[in-house]
Amino acid sequence: MRIKLTIEYVGTHFFGWQKQNDHNSVQETLENAIKKVLNYSEEIELYGAGRTDTGVHATGQVAHFDINDKKRCEYWSRNITKLPIAINFYLIDTGVAVISASVVEDDFHARFSAVARHYRYLIYNRKIGSVIYINRMWHVPQLLDHDMMNVAAQDLIGTHDLNAFRSAHCNASSAIRTIDKISVTRHDDVVQVDISARSFLHNQVRITVGTLKQIGIGRLQSDYIKYLLECRDRTKAGETAPPDGLYLMGVDY
Amino acid sequence: MRIKLTIEYVGTHFFGWQKQNDHNSVQETLENAIKKVLNYSEEIELYGAGRTDTGVHATGQVAHFDINDKKRCEYWSRNITKLPIAINFYLIDTGVAVISASVVEDDFHARFSAVARHYRYLIYNRKIGSVIYINRMWHVPQLLDHDMMNVAAQDLIGTHDLNAFRSAHCNASSAIRTIDKISVTRHDDVVQVDISARSFLHNQVRITVGTLKQIGIGRLQSDYIKYLLECRDRTKAGETAPPDGLYLMGVDY
Repeated sequence: MRIKLTIEYVGTHFFGWQKQNDHNSVQETLENAIKKVLNYSEEIELYGAGRTDTGVHATGQVAHFDINDKKRCEYWSRNITKLPIAINFYLIDTGVAVISASVVEDDFHARFSAVARHYRYLIYNRKIGSVIYINRMWHVPQLLDHDMMNVAAQDLIGTHDLNAFRSAHCNASSAIRTIDKISVTRHDDVVQVDISARSFLHNQVRITVGTLKQIGIGRLQSDYIKYLLECRDRTKAGETAPPDGLYLMGVDY
Repeated sequence: MRIKLTIEYVGTHFFGWQKQNDHNSVQETLENAIKKVLNYSEEIELYGAGRTDTGVHATGQVAHFDINDKKRCEYWSRNITKLPIAINFYLIDTGVAVISASVVEDDFHARFSAVARHYRYLIYNRKIGSVIYINRMWHVPQLLDHDMMNVAAQDLIGTHDLNAFRSAHCNASSAIRTIDKISVTRHDDVVQVDISARSFLHNQVRITVGTLKQIGIGRLQSDYIKYLLECRDRTKAGETAPPDGLYLMGVDY
């Protein structure tokens, strides 16, 4: 029986989503909690929709895992709405919580069945950084022209070679991706960048935000995105914005 | 020379604003930082607009202090816009920051000159609590009818005896206060209560929110506020909402 979980976490406390030796990961933290709930001695394998980096948060990460023995399948299919509470008991003070759980078809795959991923990036745009939202936003002290950033960002809509917007460590064979939606809006001192696409390259959102910031402070022109799409040169794009402001908001199937 | 500061802080780390023996207060933390900036051996006395309780946050607390010697007055009146940065250096990792500073008239008083104080209370209204906004909101798992709460809240507008809405420890001689504005709005999973008044009784906002919550979950009727204003009985009002969701947003002069 396959279970789909929707998960929220503060990335600050973890070396990213993915399990790795000697480092605290969201995946392993969750797997350990699930094992305790199921009272399993064998390993649980949890598959996530997006492998978020160190410091990146999620409010809508999706993951799946399988329960194989009949007794547990019967019990948890009847009590599936109680599963988040049961897992969260073992997640107290970790900065991770399961928001919802459901039984899905056996061919559902959190990563490969996804048709859209939604990311949000939050910038605290005031001279002095926020102590309230510490580790939750990127502090940019220079006043950002969010309207200009929004206009510039629209050039990313559609299918493009995004080689200028991926990290040197990105191992995707192709840099061609389709961006469905992107918007830059302001809410008082917070500038919010929302990006939706089926899939993303490594550091794509953070490099996009780092570039839009340069446009927002007037150091780059609003047609600079067009230029980057043509030259496809990472060294010409903006800095990689820090992970603190990035949130995986949700995944569509 | 009198200096007015606007201050932000995370209340979680402090036993409230007010200085007290053996306890970490926002006031003392700031006074120590200011003394270091001014290189003062004598005491600095900082007067705050609102004495927030343990766990209560501020994004717009206002306070004033005096600089008396000529040399420092001349230097800092010329460099007043640099003062927040200078103080904040001694506030790193404390959860307190000075947002702005200005020179004001000698008869300005952060507490007594205030004509309006603005408080906001944030409720995270979802089955599972938020790990992202931990210690920053009150988690209420039952679905709140925010429209009903807003309608009920309007009965508080105007001048009333608010005895039902103050803590047993409140030592104000009169419970008569004038509420200028109150609104309850929803932003996705967050229910936001905004209240403005010249001055507040002890725990007034938190008891108001605790009572509105009972109305929001349908346990009390929407005309219950009217009843409380008449009976003036604290034991008939709702619980005192926890400090985590409360923010002093700003003070008008």
